[in-house]
Amino acid sequence: MSRPPSDVPPTTPAAPQPAAHRPAQPGDPRAGTIVGDLSEAELLERFLPLLARPGAEHVLLGPGDDCAVVAAPDGRFVITTDTQVQDQDFRTAWPSGVVPTGFDTGVKCAAQNLADVAAMGAVPTAVVVSLTLPPGTPVAWPEDFARGLVAGFEDMGAARCAVVGGDLGAGRELSVTATVTGDLEGREPVRRSGAREGGVVALAGTTGRAAAGVALLDDTRYRPGADPALDELARAQLRPCAPVPAGPVAARGGATAMIDLSDGLLRDAGRVAAASGVVVDLDAGAVAALAEPLLPAGLLLGTDPRDWVLGGGEDHGLLAVFPQGVPLPAGFRAIGSCAPAPPAHDGPHPRVLLDGRAPHLALGHPVGEGWDHFEP
Amino acid sequence: MSRPPSDVPPTTPAAPQPAAHRPAQPGDPRAGTIVGDLSEAELLERFLPLLARPGAEHVLLGPGDDCAVVAAPDGRFVITTDTQVQDQDFRTAWPSGVVPTGFDTGVKCAAQNLADVAAMGAVPTAVVVSLTLPPGTPVAWPEDFARGLVAGFEDMGAARCAVVGGDLGAGRELSVTATVTGDLEGREPVRRSGAREGGVVALAGTTGRAAAGVALLDDTRYRPGADPALDELARAQLRPCAPVPAGPVAARGGATAMIDLSDGLLRDAGRVAAASGVVVDLDAGAVAALAEPLLPAGLLLGTDPRDWVLGGGEDHGLLAVFPQGVPLPAGFRAIGSCAPAPPAHDGPHPRVLLDGRAPHLALGHPVGEGWDHFEP
Repeated sequence: MSRPPSDVPPTTPAAPQPAAHRPAQPGDPRAGTIVGDLSEAELLERFLPLLARPGAEHVLLGPGDDCAVVAAPDGRFVITTDTQVQDQDFRTAWPSGVVPTGFDTGVKCAAQNLADVAAMGAVPTAVVVSLTLPPGTPVAWPEDFARGLVAGFEDMGAARCAVVGGDLGAGRELSVTATVTGDLEGREPVRRSGAREGGVVALAGTTGRAAAGVALLDDTRYRPGADPALDELARAQLRPCAPVPAGPVAARGGATAMIDLSDGLLRDAGRVAAASGVVVDLDAGAVAALAEPLLPAGLLLGTDPRDWVLGGGEDHGLLAVFPQGVPLPAGFRAIGSCAPAPPAHDGPHPRVLLDGRAPHLALGHPVGEGWDHFEP
Repeated sequence: MSRPPSDVPPTTPAAPQPAAHRPAQPGDPRAGTIVGDLSEAELLERFLPLLARPGAEHVLLGPGDDCAVVAAPDGRFVITTDTQVQDQDFRTAWPSGVVPTGFDTGVKCAAQNLADVAAMGAVPTAVVVSLTLPPGTPVAWPEDFARGLVAGFEDMGAARCAVVGGDLGAGRELSVTATVTGDLEGREPVRRSGAREGGVVALAGTTGRAAAGVALLDDTRYRPGADPALDELARAQLRPCAPVPAGPVAARGGATAMIDLSDGLLRDAGRVAAASGVVVDLDAGAVAALAEPLLPAGLLLGTDPRDWVLGGGEDHGLLAVFPQGVPLPAGFRAIGSCAPAPPAHDGPHPRVLLDGRAPHLALGHPVGEGWDHFEP
């Protein structure tokens, strides 16, 4: 997907910067003012103005009261929530030497929340965000987070979306929870359960890049700044770009099912298949094409890049199913089709196939069927 | 406020139970199945059914897809979010020997979120909830939390409110974030800024009890079960009961300003005064009356109970301002009035007075002007 124009500075530096060039992190004596030096009110005074966005006409009452008030023109709204926890969902330092900032976490927060709204075919309207900050956190961290969140809205084409409220609190662990709402603009929500036999399975955005990025960032063989192709994959992990406008485009274009690819293609396509009572048959050629840009990382790390395409989440691409014969909207590429589920009396069957056969991840790298927070 | 009838078992035991009688806590070898033993999907399978509520007609699409869909009949919704972090906003054990459960945290989560919606004059409609759980947490904890949340909805008169989505993730620290939405039913939101000179300042629910409860729970001189009056105060901290229906009642009854007393009467009344450009003059007799049920705790701990009334939050009472001469709705008691703010050229002035004078907290107990997450 091409990105919409943006008034804000680019969110993606030429290459992830090594630690020495990056802002101070929690616990760093270079940090300057820390969160514990300020009252909650003082911190809010610095934080909230960074979130202000002009022209959000649907925000009837913004932050500052017990609640915000948001317009829901068609008498409904969609809502979802996501949490990121330090060292679990984001890192403050990678073995490769890359030190992410609050800006990165802000962009990631925007991507994962906006993509969920887009996957219903809705347009994001409002976000409330809660930050739990250890008292030693530099004040620059929540400030950078706010800038990254708003830049993410702009860069991902969620121009109407505004932060309307939040909560700042202390804890031992840095954690971010955002809840986002969206407007269906009079359309029915596009659910996971609407895929039908013969439907064309199509992807907007990317899949596997963020997973390749994790593998790179986690490995000392990756040297930030030495290879632009690798740096781009690292950026896909640090600052994912969800194809948010593609969600409403798909809904208008006749998509009958849609899901945000946050947990990996196999797992998320399997969810569509299970909810719809079909089998998703992915096209091996399309998977190979998606893996092609990941090959430099695969060669460096000795990983078949198709593993990342099939198993990796966090790019926040959108997987949609269109009825056979419907022209795919701009930004979508066909990557498979829906086949009938085998009769129940045949016993358990794989929900997702690759060219008609159960997918087999090529190498020993245990990406499994995507990401589970509680698996060992 | 009297509580509405409820089909669920009472949420408040006769007395907070000492540790030996309570369910296992995180890290406890008695715990049985822990969160780390289950996959995210298995945990959701146990968690989500506990949140199901019949008859929530405004929930157009419940949990299980990328987003939920909620009705907003008047074309708007109110929204707010709150986070509770273990050892910061709730404890897993108190010096008095009381060991709270996930149920307590669920009730507390309901109270603080529902009260914010009520304070706008709105009716709570939907909640999304995110739990961050250390892998060693007993599975009973999130299960108890879900039961407490739903029991809280019932007991606090938010019968229409339903959990429509959430997020379960792992972290080092137990943390709960809820976002709640509400329906204004065609009315204008009741803001903090609408208090006018001569207005009557009125309270629904209580204030100071939860603060007295903290002081008791935190002190080995408090022996759970020995004095019902003290146990009731401890319960006000463990399982607060916000007067949720009083919010829409106040809005219908002509309230021009309203706030949830989550950070203490002085601080929250000061917010109304600042936003409205008035001074709130509290009635010392009314404050004394509110302090009266706290006297047994004050005598035990050597604290003037008026300090708790003026400085303590977390009861989640509602403070509303009604125009002079308007009859107060049922459930509200007058506790003060609004006076004109002194001219700006007179310099800084206290926002809140007690019988016309700057309030002076009686004893050395530094409750200040309420709660700030980042103050030392």
